[in-house]
Amino acid sequence: MTNRAVILLSGGLDSATVLALAIRDGFTPIALTFRYGQRHAREVTAAHAVAKHFKVKEHIVYELDLRPIAKSALTRKKENVPVGRSLKEISKGIPATYVPSRNIIMLSIASSLAESRGARDVFIAAHAVDYSGYPDCRPEFFEAFEEALSRGTKTGVEGAPIRIRAPLVKMGKAEIVKLGASLGVPFGKTWSCYIGGKRACGGCDSCILRLKGFAEAGLEDPVVYANPAR
Amino acid sequence: MTNRAVILLSGGLDSATVLALAIRDGFTPIALTFRYGQRHAREVTAAHAVAKHFKVKEHIVYELDLRPIAKSALTRKKENVPVGRSLKEISKGIPATYVPSRNIIMLSIASSLAESRGARDVFIAAHAVDYSGYPDCRPEFFEAFEEALSRGTKTGVEGAPIRIRAPLVKMGKAEIVKLGASLGVPFGKTWSCYIGGKRACGGCDSCILRLKGFAEAGLEDPVVYANPAR
Repeated sequence: MTNRAVILLSGGLDSATVLALAIRDGFTPIALTFRYGQRHAREVTAAHAVAKHFKVKEHIVYELDLRPIAKSALTRKKENVPVGRSLKEISKGIPATYVPSRNIIMLSIASSLAESRGARDVFIAAHAVDYSGYPDCRPEFFEAFEEALSRGTKTGVEGAPIRIRAPLVKMGKAEIVKLGASLGVPFGKTWSCYIGGKRACGGCDSCILRLKGFAEAGLEDPVVYANPAR
Repeated sequence: MTNRAVILLSGGLDSATVLALAIRDGFTPIALTFRYGQRHAREVTAAHAVAKHFKVKEHIVYELDLRPIAKSALTRKKENVPVGRSLKEISKGIPATYVPSRNIIMLSIASSLAESRGARDVFIAAHAVDYSGYPDCRPEFFEAFEEALSRGTKTGVEGAPIRIRAPLVKMGKAEIVKLGASLGVPFGKTWSCYIGGKRACGGCDSCILRLKGFAEAGLEDPVVYANPAR
């Protein structure tokens, strides 16, 4: 019996770690990456590299252009991605990089894929500790969404609902970095920066949280930063 | 103050009726139609005609090709749409035309649009009486989904969650036909048939339920059927 699971793979270090974890735990991964009108496609390239590293047999890159729908700094050029914020600022409120209902949309499509392919589990790399104030990264959201799936899908009604697995949800970034290192995640192939230049900017919320995670884990981030002093 | 609402407009008679209802109740509609790899685009044309009839100022047709994701007779050609089933057969179980997580995906995108545009309400034309056995057309699903939205969106966390409105959910098809007629819905411009030829087939579940609705309402369906004897 195969034990398929759909893994949301953005190309960042978190989702790469979740992929490694699912493989370790015996799942046969179907990786799902969204090209959702991101400001850059750098993370899609990273997702490919990570999937290849882990010899993932099925990797679906799904076009989901949210630009006509969702207002966010990650999907619209005229909004600026905030840079150089302090950790205190990052941990406060919901930033401009919030994409309305993004995880809800991605989890819905992942669930559809899971149901179509006979998978019972959907893995998402969200975490709510060093998160970025995104409401759709919290355990209470995942629980409610799982309930909606159990009521709104065929497998749910038939008593075998799809489970949303967010194994990192209670981990801090340092803990994730340590876990990823122990699982052999190729950090150099992952991409977390919101800006997406040749080098990671080092100043956006995502870079700041990543750098903090590596520093606290006592490990070196192999990704090259444009501004390592930050 | 504008009172915007997102209306899921498929082009069928149900969603046309919901659009008319929302307008009557004072909402400024943003119509949202999905081109989701349907077997035919006939219903998208119908959605355009209905939106035009009601002078809808904003009508977004969103490309959402579910073919790489979802297995269903409505998105894959090799699966056959069932025809000529009795009402008893239709009311039993979940048919091949079920698209895994379709309403979940569409409602997620509608919610994202609503949040981005300052709308608080999302209307969907689902109904669970003469439905077709789809689990994501039932009130208990909508309640759970609303709860997921209230926990997973910015507006939800801020205390102004998006409401899912399914005003037809407890109506039978005849009741919907009568309501539509009273609201001036141009039935001849709507399209319900799953097959999508030049004329409606008259034999698929959707045609059968529609014809039954008109018959019970004592009204004539202006749509031309290929096989009116059915």
